[in-house]
Amino acid sequence: MQNNRQINKSGELQHLLTIEGLPVSMLHHILDTAESFVGVTEREVKKVPLLRGKAIFNLFFEPSTRTRTTFEIAAKRLSADVINLNISASSQSKGETLLDTVNNLSAMHADMFIVRHAQSGAAHLIARHVAPEIHVINAGDGRHAHPTQALLDMYTIRHFKRDFHELRVAIIGDVMHSRVARSQIHALTTLGVPEVRVIAPKTLLPKGVEHLGVHAYHDMSKGLKDVDVLLMLRLQNERMQGALLPSAQEYFKYYGLTPEKLALARPDAIVMHPGPMNRGIEIDSSVADGPQSVILPQVTFGIAVRMAVMSILAGS
Amino acid sequence: MQNNRQINKSGELQHLLTIEGLPVSMLHHILDTAESFVGVTEREVKKVPLLRGKAIFNLFFEPSTRTRTTFEIAAKRLSADVINLNISASSQSKGETLLDTVNNLSAMHADMFIVRHAQSGAAHLIARHVAPEIHVINAGDGRHAHPTQALLDMYTIRHFKRDFHELRVAIIGDVMHSRVARSQIHALTTLGVPEVRVIAPKTLLPKGVEHLGVHAYHDMSKGLKDVDVLLMLRLQNERMQGALLPSAQEYFKYYGLTPEKLALARPDAIVMHPGPMNRGIEIDSSVADGPQSVILPQVTFGIAVRMAVMSILAGS
Amino acid sequence: MQNNRQINKSGELQHLLTIEGLPVSMLHHILDTAESFVGVTEREVKKVPLLRGKAIFNLFFEPSTRTRTTFEIAAKRLSADVINLNISASSQSKGETLLDTVNNLSAMHADMFIVRHAQSGAAHLIARHVAPEIHVINAGDGRHAHPTQALLDMYTIRHFKRDFHELRVAIIGDVMHSRVARSQIHALTTLGVPEVRVIAPKTLLPKGVEHLGVHAYHDMSKGLKDVDVLLMLRLQNERMQGALLPSAQEYFKYYGLTPEKLALARPDAIVMHPGPMNRGIEIDSSVADGPQSVILPQVTFGIAVRMAVMSILAGS
Repeated sequence: MQNNRQINKSGELQHLLTIEGLPVSMLHHILDTAESFVGVTEREVKKVPLLRGKAIFNLFFEPSTRTRTTFEIAAKRLSADVINLNISASSQSKGETLLDTVNNLSAMHADMFIVRHAQSGAAHLIARHVAPEIHVINAGDGRHAHPTQALLDMYTIRHFKRDFHELRVAIIGDVMHSRVARSQIHALTTLGVPEVRVIAPKTLLPKGVEHLGVHAYHDMSKGLKDVDVLLMLRLQNERMQGALLPSAQEYFKYYGLTPEKLALARPDAIVMHPGPMNRGIEIDSSVADGPQSVILPQVTFGIAVRMAVMSILAGS
Repeated sequence: MQNNRQINKSGELQHLLTIEGLPVSMLHHILDTAESFVGVTEREVKKVPLLRGKAIFNLFFEPSTRTRTTFEIAAKRLSADVINLNISASSQSKGETLLDTVNNLSAMHADMFIVRHAQSGAAHLIARHVAPEIHVINAGDGRHAHPTQALLDMYTIRHFKRDFHELRVAIIGDVMHSRVARSQIHALTTLGVPEVRVIAPKTLLPKGVEHLGVHAYHDMSKGLKDVDVLLMLRLQNERMQGALLPSAQEYFKYYGLTPEKLALARPDAIVMHPGPMNRGIEIDSSVADGPQSVILPQVTFGIAVRMAVMSILAGS
Repeated sequence: MQNNRQINKSGELQHLLTIEGLPVSMLHHILDTAESFVGVTEREVKKVPLLRGKAIFNLFFEPSTRTRTTFEIAAKRLSADVINLNISASSQSKGETLLDTVNNLSAMHADMFIVRHAQSGAAHLIARHVAPEIHVINAGDGRHAHPTQALLDMYTIRHFKRDFHELRVAIIGDVMHSRVARSQIHALTTLGVPEVRVIAPKTLLPKGVEHLGVHAYHDMSKGLKDVDVLLMLRLQNERMQGALLPSAQEYFKYYGLTPEKLALARPDAIVMHPGPMNRGIEIDSSVADGPQSVILPQVTFGIAVRMAVMSILAGS
């Protein structure tokens, strides 16, 4: 996919479609901007007028209350007007094409589209067709990318670990079907993490994943050794019913993060998860709620990171 | 259920979960505050900035457009940001637990949760787990409680009858399955109403209801005699299909409020209903739309009462 | 239907239910007001405070994301509070009547109802029952009327053609089932268009349509001759399955707007469509996206026109 569209000729962010190809300076600019917003969300009046009068459309072609909510809150804290469109139940069923829908909303003088779509490349397609004053954020497209999730993960890592250049980071679980994992890998390597590992059963690891600059492991006991950051992935229930996995119990036995397995990592390792968690499948509750878990801070930082991306894109 | 959680150590309202256990002074404080908001809703610009920048989440695990709307309007008139979450269709179906959902929303720096849930105790459970700066309002949990409905009923009674200490009040209909009835009984007895009656067929009256301080009647002609206030309950359609009731016609014949039955009450008696009404089942249209009906004023006062509760909880 | 209700005794617009019966001066007043709002939607901060604190309810008894969205954006640009109610899934299913729903919302001190309903006359019925300070906009009722769509069409025609008095306008497609066509015919004849044509197969043309002051054609080659404005109608998919039409291909062959057929009209003719389009059925993509298409400007003007109607109704 053509990613160059997301940086304009002046080197500014025009869209956020994928982490792939973003310069390290841009990643740090987003994280620094997010840091300035963390304070806003803790104030009595959690609002800044940066996007007042802007019209932000949540275009969710795939249901996701959680992600939609984080963008809605972030936009409202920037004083934007938010319009939620749940498109599956709408014009799409009347046979209107994706681009007709987007062209119509553009003609209403939209300022930003937040796009979640089951098909990889949907946000890119939209970005390629909108007018130059409209910005697109990819909120998850198929198995391809989920850049704001990866950015909030990076914010969380930077918050707790400060320097990316000394870290061992492991991404654990269904890497194969995960847009989150793809975006995390690009972000970690761009930010200079020297060792990125992926740990998964063979059936859940894409072929040639090493070409992305990661080390592949099929065994938690080896893969977790001396790791500083554990990025757990959500196991899609659908995988269970297919031929890719024997059973939830089996999966938990070998890849579920228990206190015993976590003890293989560094004692100050942090545990992250994009949510929603399958407790007892990919993660044990004692770890999810334990002292090394930073899963709830991820959510908090997620609002600030989305405010940062939106204000960088549409702020004047 | 532990109700003491809703009053904090300084004697202030921390959550509104149930009427049970609330001191009479708190009930009057809410009603007095509501009175100050009635004027706001009649102004040209129906807004006050009391909750500006606060994030209020409508967490509706059970659909209810009407109740959700009243809270949404009340919050917007207080200038809060409102986020509607219809949770049945969302993360719950992805297997996330109620508490994970709530913890996530808390981590987004929510200020208030309005909770409607089919299970009794859901709002209590949430209140027990949220951070101290987050407030919970029970908007109906199972058969347990619906405190804001009872409060708006009390506001309406106080508005039309002034003094609670001289009143005969009858609650009529499906008391057994009604969270509204439970909350009304607690409110009426706390506010000093000397005679609270419940009128229902035996199958729709919970055993031992007299222990709540009410008099039970199975006969409208006796129960309505000299009553000042009639609180009608909605008959759930589901009850009809079960063994609890013979038929809608039979029910209407014996318990439906007709002008003839209403004539048994005091001539200045007022008729109330929480809505939505089943006209021709629990209430005749000529009564619902008649001169003694204060059903629409209930709705109007409901906005002011919800503004009062929200501003007492989250106002600074 | 009684349309006189929409103009009050002072000659001001009280509701917008239908174009039928509106004086030409009122139509121009709405279009002139819309013109002043076109600039607002192109500003950095796309907001004016005209309806601050007003509560506008989108009452959609029939799903329509597109129309609902245009009203929601228009209302937010006027700084109103918007509450979306999707009523099919709500109280209606609990057996509440339309009027009880509306009376309840009125009691919450609503300022305006935007009503979309599958039954002709629904908006009129509501307008007949609301309090005098509440305004109703018909956003489409059955086959009867869709006045804001017709007004935005008139705005678009005036924008591109300036004077209505010299125009030949053709309405093409399923006139029989179209509320849009009915409203367009009333608007065009009121504004003084000397020649309004309708072009459709016999099965899709209502009997006696000539009494509305239009000329009926069944043949595109005759009907399109020397036309200045082409108003395409959406072909409802349901018609295909019925006996009214042979097939989509047949329809496209005879009535689908291709470049060849468009060449029969005047060289500077403009092509309009209310959306969503069935590309390849009633319109060819090369026309929809071609130089004579003003379909996207229609959408843009639609926001300004709806802001105009709302501010004329509820502005102080």
